[in-house]
Amino acid sequence: MTETTLAHLNSCSKADFVAALANIFEYSPWIAEAAADRRPFAGVSALFTAMTATVEGGSDKQRLALIRAHPDLADKTQRAAGLTAESHAEQNSAGLDRLSDAEYQAFEQANTAYRKKFDFPYIVCVRRHTKDSILADFEKRLPNDAKAEVAASIGEICRIAALRLDQLVKGDDPLKVHGRLSTHVLDTHGGKPAAGIEVELMELSRLGASRVVARTVTNHDGRTDMPLIGGRPVPIGRYELTFKVGAYFAARKVAMSDPPFLDEIPLRFAVYEPEGHLHVPLLVTPWSYGTYRGS
Amino acid sequence: MTETTLAHLNSCSKADFVAALANIFEYSPWIAEAAADRRPFAGVSALFTAMTATVEGGSDKQRLALIRAHPDLADKTQRAAGLTAESHAEQNSAGLDRLSDAEYQAFEQANTAYRKKFDFPYIVCVRRHTKDSILADFEKRLPNDAKAEVAASIGEICRIAALRLDQLVKGDDPLKVHGRLSTHVLDTHGGKPAAGIEVELMELSRLGASRVVARTVTNHDGRTDMPLIGGRPVPIGRYELTFKVGAYFAARKVAMSDPPFLDEIPLRFAVYEPEGHLHVPLLVTPWSYGTYRGS
Amino acid sequence: MTETTLAHLNSCSKADFVAALANIFEYSPWIAEAAADRRPFAGVSALFTAMTATVEGGSDKQRLALIRAHPDLADKTQRAAGLTAESHAEQNSAGLDRLSDAEYQAFEQANTAYRKKFDFPYIVCVRRHTKDSILADFEKRLPNDAKAEVAASIGEICRIAALRLDQLVKGDDPLKVHGRLSTHVLDTHGGKPAAGIEVELMELSRLGASRVVARTVTNHDGRTDMPLIGGRPVPIGRYELTFKVGAYFAARKVAMSDPPFLDEIPLRFAVYEPEGHLHVPLLVTPWSYGTYRGS
Amino acid sequence: MTETTLAHLNSCSKADFVAALANIFEYSPWIAEAAADRRPFAGVSALFTAMTATVEGGSDKQRLALIRAHPDLADKTQRAAGLTAESHAEQNSAGLDRLSDAEYQAFEQANTAYRKKFDFPYIVCVRRHTKDSILADFEKRLPNDAKAEVAASIGEICRIAALRLDQLVKGDDPLKVHGRLSTHVLDTHGGKPAAGIEVELMELSRLGASRVVARTVTNHDGRTDMPLIGGRPVPIGRYELTFKVGAYFAARKVAMSDPPFLDEIPLRFAVYEPEGHLHVPLLVTPWSYGTYRGS
Repeated sequence: MTETTLAHLNSCSKADFVAALANIFEYSPWIAEAAADRRPFAGVSALFTAMTATVEGGSDKQRLALIRAHPDLADKTQRAAGLTAESHAEQNSAGLDRLSDAEYQAFEQANTAYRKKFDFPYIVCVRRHTKDSILADFEKRLPNDAKAEVAASIGEICRIAALRLDQLVKGDDPLKVHGRLSTHVLDTHGGKPAAGIEVELMELSRLGASRVVARTVTNHDGRTDMPLIGGRPVPIGRYELTFKVGAYFAARKVAMSDPPFLDEIPLRFAVYEPEGHLHVPLLVTPWSYGTYRGS
Repeated sequence: MTETTLAHLNSCSKADFVAALANIFEYSPWIAEAAADRRPFAGVSALFTAMTATVEGGSDKQRLALIRAHPDLADKTQRAAGLTAESHAEQNSAGLDRLSDAEYQAFEQANTAYRKKFDFPYIVCVRRHTKDSILADFEKRLPNDAKAEVAASIGEICRIAALRLDQLVKGDDPLKVHGRLSTHVLDTHGGKPAAGIEVELMELSRLGASRVVARTVTNHDGRTDMPLIGGRPVPIGRYELTFKVGAYFAARKVAMSDPPFLDEIPLRFAVYEPEGHLHVPLLVTPWSYGTYRGS
Repeated sequence: MTETTLAHLNSCSKADFVAALANIFEYSPWIAEAAADRRPFAGVSALFTAMTATVEGGSDKQRLALIRAHPDLADKTQRAAGLTAESHAEQNSAGLDRLSDAEYQAFEQANTAYRKKFDFPYIVCVRRHTKDSILADFEKRLPNDAKAEVAASIGEICRIAALRLDQLVKGDDPLKVHGRLSTHVLDTHGGKPAAGIEVELMELSRLGASRVVARTVTNHDGRTDMPLIGGRPVPIGRYELTFKVGAYFAARKVAMSDPPFLDEIPLRFAVYEPEGHLHVPLLVTPWSYGTYRGS
Repeated sequence: MTETTLAHLNSCSKADFVAALANIFEYSPWIAEAAADRRPFAGVSALFTAMTATVEGGSDKQRLALIRAHPDLADKTQRAAGLTAESHAEQNSAGLDRLSDAEYQAFEQANTAYRKKFDFPYIVCVRRHTKDSILADFEKRLPNDAKAEVAASIGEICRIAALRLDQLVKGDDPLKVHGRLSTHVLDTHGGKPAAGIEVELMELSRLGASRVVARTVTNHDGRTDMPLIGGRPVPIGRYELTFKVGAYFAARKVAMSDPPFLDEIPLRFAVYEPEGHLHVPLLVTPWSYGTYRGS
């Protein structure tokens, strides 16, 4: 899909409108068609509300078809056959294109069990998740009944749609679909922000390999110039931030033990609100440190 | 060697005395012989002082022979040929019997470089070290000149002797050769010691595999019934303590996020004084924690 | 009363026994008389249990008489007329002999209101209280009905008796009537216990003047040689501990601002379990500090 | 003086320019006169630089006259006779119009000693100070020689001028003469900013009475809507921030002791950089708290 503006969508032909928004809902242009008739929209939020209202107002059969229009997660056959470009990019964002054998097997088992029970694919808004949290979500939802899962699937489809719409249409009232993960290092030995500390953010995985998702250095204010994760949902999951404080204090000629009592400090935590702002600061001396869920 | 008492050593025959203490200094019974004539000893410290004075008072040739009586570290050929039982147990304590290929290669390179430069084996009191800190010590000492290394080697030999003597002879005045590593968990959410928290201590290794060296559970006072490491030197090296705080707070029905912001908390630190008391406590709520070098 | 031993009390004449324990319960020797016949006692706890069982087994009239045998708190007329030596010392412990005019008036009002409502004096174990907490207790109990207040008064009388018995009779099984308030200063700038820090403990008062109850200096382990309060109940109330950390860091030539960001650090907290161990540590750098309810 | 703009000052008559800026330097219009000829100024900073350059370039005699044009601090006789309106307001800002007898005596002694030694008045930029820090500054400067004190006095006069100029002339490039004192309360029991906490800021005084300088309540972000002190220099001195955390946790039904272990928490600290940003946050549970010099 090509980026566009709300002004254009409000004024273009119905055909162009539908073409532009065809894949906001996977392979389901009827939703864009219904929305086209409600133009003009005062903002992106109003457009999104109109589209989700169409979904909510559709028949059970339509909603089930919408669900069935989605691919299985991490399905190699479908990948070969072709996902929408949107699905493809989304699945890659969660690392679903780089699964270890153990992970692939876990996803396949879950998918198969889910499809066997419900006769439709398991759907989740993968941009809000890590591989681990998708598997945890699978396990939480599998015991549900079909009605609950139809509702859950539609909910996830709307989340996917919101993110696709946010990427596609620029407007003055962005949908609240982005979160932020930030840090801050205070040197409580020197009483000042700790500048120049190397920071690494790793996404942890129980089944497969953990992977580095950000590497940066603190600036003169002890913060990072850019959020560790920002401008998108912060995927639910477990993370480890590592701070190279030994090198920092050594460079400042602070007296330390040999080897230094504290060198690389890991902070391990979970993200649980992808659209929230999670601030994980570090207060540190060569002999002590602390952290807290900040804001 | 069989455990004995100072009273027995003070009163037995010279031959028995020498036999009992023959391997306090590796393959060098002349040191025990010299000490035998200075009996009786008021305490184990006095006995140890007499033996080290003998070493210090010996000729350069004797000291060099003493150094050369020691095996190469982690040398597979010598292991096959036979170390003293004491050397064997000591090397195993540092995990030198379980080296990965990369570690083995690193040790062999270092050993070879050291022996080539000095024409005597690299000696270190391995009970005070981890594999990583032995390699770090190698690198620190290799640039030294021969005189400095003879002195360093004799120093290490005396540390080895002190530990062997401490194990062998029971007296009222133990040599100060033991250290202690302890922890304590305070639940600052509930304002009380955190009981029942699973704690794991891992010795970290840069080259090879890290290994768990203690697993325990906090008692009603938030402490562990036994020190994490005690009754021996705490090997110099890097460690990671992990505390399962998510399970603790969940069991107490404390409101938490899903997944919990904090679940398994790692504290990564180094030991630098094997004979000291290092206390590494954890102050924790579901949303914050801190640690410090305690006492 | 003169200090004695359980062995003596078990073997002396009934008259001596009663004489020795006459004032454990204020002006009520009948309780000691009943206990005398149950001798010997295996321990001080058993003796105390026998005496409180006598009180519990007495008639309502006896219990009311026991209550009425007690003086009004802080009553100047009764002070002139004469309290038992025990009552006198106990009231002084809480500072009831040094009341400001405002405090005296507050006590008198409360006393009068209580006596008017219940026709017996307000009784509280003053050794477990500060002036402020006595007034708070007054206000909490005044709305009660007579039955509840008879029970509350007997409860307080038994607490008073336990403390008197503990002071009077030495045995191997002390009654658990003592608490402890302690501190500990960790210098997390230097990574060691903070030795030589001046510490002052002040008991705070809302109505009258606050007063210093302990002044001490931390030892080489960052602790105080004696607990701040120990060997007695720690009176319920509000306290402020002050630590002169500016002088400490200045003496160690630590770089600080002028004036120092932190100089005298106050920790303000309340005691609520007079028989418990309350530990209030300070973790401090020139730029940060923290405290927690320790154990 | 009436507020004006740089544009007006650049374009008005010389007489008006001098009249507008006459009292930037106390009773010394010659400085404004010299500056008038250097118009136009690109910014307020350039204007200020021109005026201070005039002072620096003046003769010793002129500088001494400038110093002598200033009033004695806290001099009752001069107050009756009349200060410039600027001096009057500045002295009041530090509370010099509300001195206790002890404080007045201390100021008078210092003033007299200073004038006797140097034959000119003690000058300090009082808007950057509290009463306590003025007296500390007196004591620090009194031992200086005359040359050092002329330089120190001129330095203070320029600081006074900068603040007067900043108040008088609005421009796009404000002089960096303002500081900020802020706070932030994190509830680490609940893992969120602590909203609705009553906060009081008191300026402490050794000689006289401490006084409340700000009272506020934390907002939904745990911060205060306005800085505790802002838009002016933060006076050097000792302060105490008090946070009513007991009421906060009680309102949230958090289990606490009776009385609450923590109720009103005082943080006592000093300000040392009047033009800096000092952030003093509180991290708190009902059982622990901490603070640090933040940024």
